[in-house]
Amino acid sequence: MKKKITILPGDGIGKEVTTSGKKVLEQIADCFGHEFIFDYALIGHEAIEATGNPLPDETLTKLKNSDAVLFGAVGHPKYDNDPSAKIRPEQGLLKMRKELGLYANLRPIKLFDELLEASSIKPEILKGADILFFRELTGDVYFGERGRKDNNDTAYDTMIYSRYEVERIAHKAFKAAQTRSKKLTSVDKANVLESSRLWREVVQDVAKQYPDVTVEHMFVDAAAMKLIQNPKSFDVVVTGNLFGDILTDEASQIAGSMGMLASASVGDTVGLYEPIHGSAHDITGKGVANPLASILSAALLLDISFGLKEEADTVIKAVEQTLKEGYRTRDIADASTPHEKILGTEVMGNV
Amino acid sequence: MKKKITILPGDGIGKEVTTSGKKVLEQIADCFGHEFIFDYALIGHEAIEATGNPLPDETLTKLKNSDAVLFGAVGHPKYDNDPSAKIRPEQGLLKMRKELGLYANLRPIKLFDELLEASSIKPEILKGADILFFRELTGDVYFGERGRKDNNDTAYDTMIYSRYEVERIAHKAFKAAQTRSKKLTSVDKANVLESSRLWREVVQDVAKQYPDVTVEHMFVDAAAMKLIQNPKSFDVVVTGNLFGDILTDEASQIAGSMGMLASASVGDTVGLYEPIHGSAHDITGKGVANPLASILSAALLLDISFGLKEEADTVIKAVEQTLKEGYRTRDIADASTPHEKILGTEVMGNV
Ligand SMILES: CC(C)[C@H](C(=O)O)[C@@H](O)C(=O)O
Ligand SMILES: CC(C)[C@H](C(=O)O)[C@@H](O)C(=O)O
Repeated sequence: MKKKITILPGDGIGKEVTTSGKKVLEQIADCFGHEFIFDYALIGHEAIEATGNPLPDETLTKLKNSDAVLFGAVGHPKYDNDPSAKIRPEQGLLKMRKELGLYANLRPIKLFDELLEASSIKPEILKGADILFFRELTGDVYFGERGRKDNNDTAYDTMIYSRYEVERIAHKAFKAAQTRSKKLTSVDKANVLESSRLWREVVQDVAKQYPDVTVEHMFVDAAAMKLIQNPKSFDVVVTGNLFGDILTDEASQIAGSMGMLASASVGDTVGLYEPIHGSAHDITGKGVANPLASILSAALLLDISFGLKEEADTVIKAVEQTLKEGYRTRDIADASTPHEKILGTEVMGNV
Repeated sequence: MKKKITILPGDGIGKEVTTSGKKVLEQIADCFGHEFIFDYALIGHEAIEATGNPLPDETLTKLKNSDAVLFGAVGHPKYDNDPSAKIRPEQGLLKMRKELGLYANLRPIKLFDELLEASSIKPEILKGADILFFRELTGDVYFGERGRKDNNDTAYDTMIYSRYEVERIAHKAFKAAQTRSKKLTSVDKANVLESSRLWREVVQDVAKQYPDVTVEHMFVDAAAMKLIQNPKSFDVVVTGNLFGDILTDEASQIAGSMGMLASASVGDTVGLYEPIHGSAHDITGKGVANPLASILSAALLLDISFGLKEEADTVIKAVEQTLKEGYRTRDIADASTPHEKILGTEVMGNV
């Protein structure tokens, strides 16, 4: 198989972890006789520094012409502490999601048995937890109208959803539920928000086409609580962009660490694969970032964009084996990990 | 001391738990020689059934004329599953918060040592956690313009904040931080939302008046993660209405159960005290609801609205003693609780 993959390192630890992800893709190409052609493009703070634009046209063209994208992260503390900055790294990310039509963000939350002790949650609560989140990614308050009024003293953002946006992500989630335990939880805040009432209405409508799937509607506050109280009560979860952002970061604790979680963004065209962790400037350049989320993103890429199931499984098995042998990065080490098995990003990526 | 207290049971387990809360207030009045005059009023589904209005004028007048309010919960599954319902119990709650100017919702999250094992989070992660949330309660997407367009196929809500709204809650949070460990975490999503950028700007401005307090700004997704990963890293937290709703429900797991958490809503006029749990129709009428959140709400009422510190402490000590003696409701029982010590709502309220 011959494929074009664009690597989009972005900011912070994005560069370190995509290096590991790419290395794994190269090894898979070697072992299985595929030809992957890699190219690089700029996004985020990096792109602003080089071109003034967080998503240069050249990047967008490259992405549209590739068969899959391996992405790192964007963000920089410089903008976070300056609420008045007009150009921001995150604008590049949001514009990319929108322009590529990446409306469905899949975030599988699964704990590797070897990491049962790495989480702050009790092992008996976690054991067997396996959740697949569908986060809507191109709508909601991320893309509604926003601005200031009253002399800059009032600020607003618009949470907004249209029927077709809810329909298409709901269909994806229902289809996934059919291949798993046939249970879908839809999360909203329909007791207060009109956009959530539309969300619930549409999910109820779409549900009629999947009579074999049991649907449960849950308020986001209750879901945030229950995810920790009883993660095993969830299987497939579908929710809007903002609630999905919050709940999946929270759910990372179910997998032991954010450094373990990969995500796939798919939709109309090319698929994009990225860790759910951010740019993490506090640990950038120290070589301690966990590359496994990027490596697992590469596995999702092989599986979802290229249909290479065996290759994807090989990557996952290698990760399992590495953990079984006791190798850990700092974030997933527990007190029982011997010091000499705590590895840096690069070595962990090589193991 | 002579005071008028309105009891607002509301829906579901609201009635059961406020009965316990009221009983405790009566006992305190007896022991300490105060005179508390109780009155009842209708809100929520109950009020809709009786008057067609989730917050009848009569209720509002009673509340405005009382010295404090002990509230239960509102909500009913009937409306939750009917996204098109025009009149809803929650409207009564939101209107009440707005009309009474209850802009600051204080949610103390503290684990009683006796419940260390009741949580799904590991005891060593929890031990010593003590967080005070300030949730803004009369602004944000709860009160912005909302509606439908495009033939009902598009729905929107407006997240909106004005400078003075952020200022007044920030001042309350900074003042509280000064009396505690002098550390404040402000939670927003300023990398995406304009209303969050205003929030951050204002908190940064207000911070200048409290040079002894260290402020940390955190994105809501990161906060949702960190609350579970390392709850002890938080002390006072201030955030908007929606993020506060989600994060405090999540944080209930730090205290072992939602059934343990009380909250105080204060602002311009009378103070209102309520459990953070909802109406919980799934357990209504079964007598298994945990009354401690309502009892601890009564303690907050004594402390904050009446300045009766000793009386409030007496209530908290009584709760501690009850837990120490091994009594539990179902939600906070762990495997080591002997069956005969698992009590129903009424008995737990009497102990
Ligand atoms: C960086 C930020 C804009 C982004 C988001 O909120 O979507 C990130 O948190 C994510 O989850 O991918
Ligand atoms: C019932 C609901 C409208 C309410 C809210 O979201 O504020 C509740 O969840 C709460 O936290 O008091």
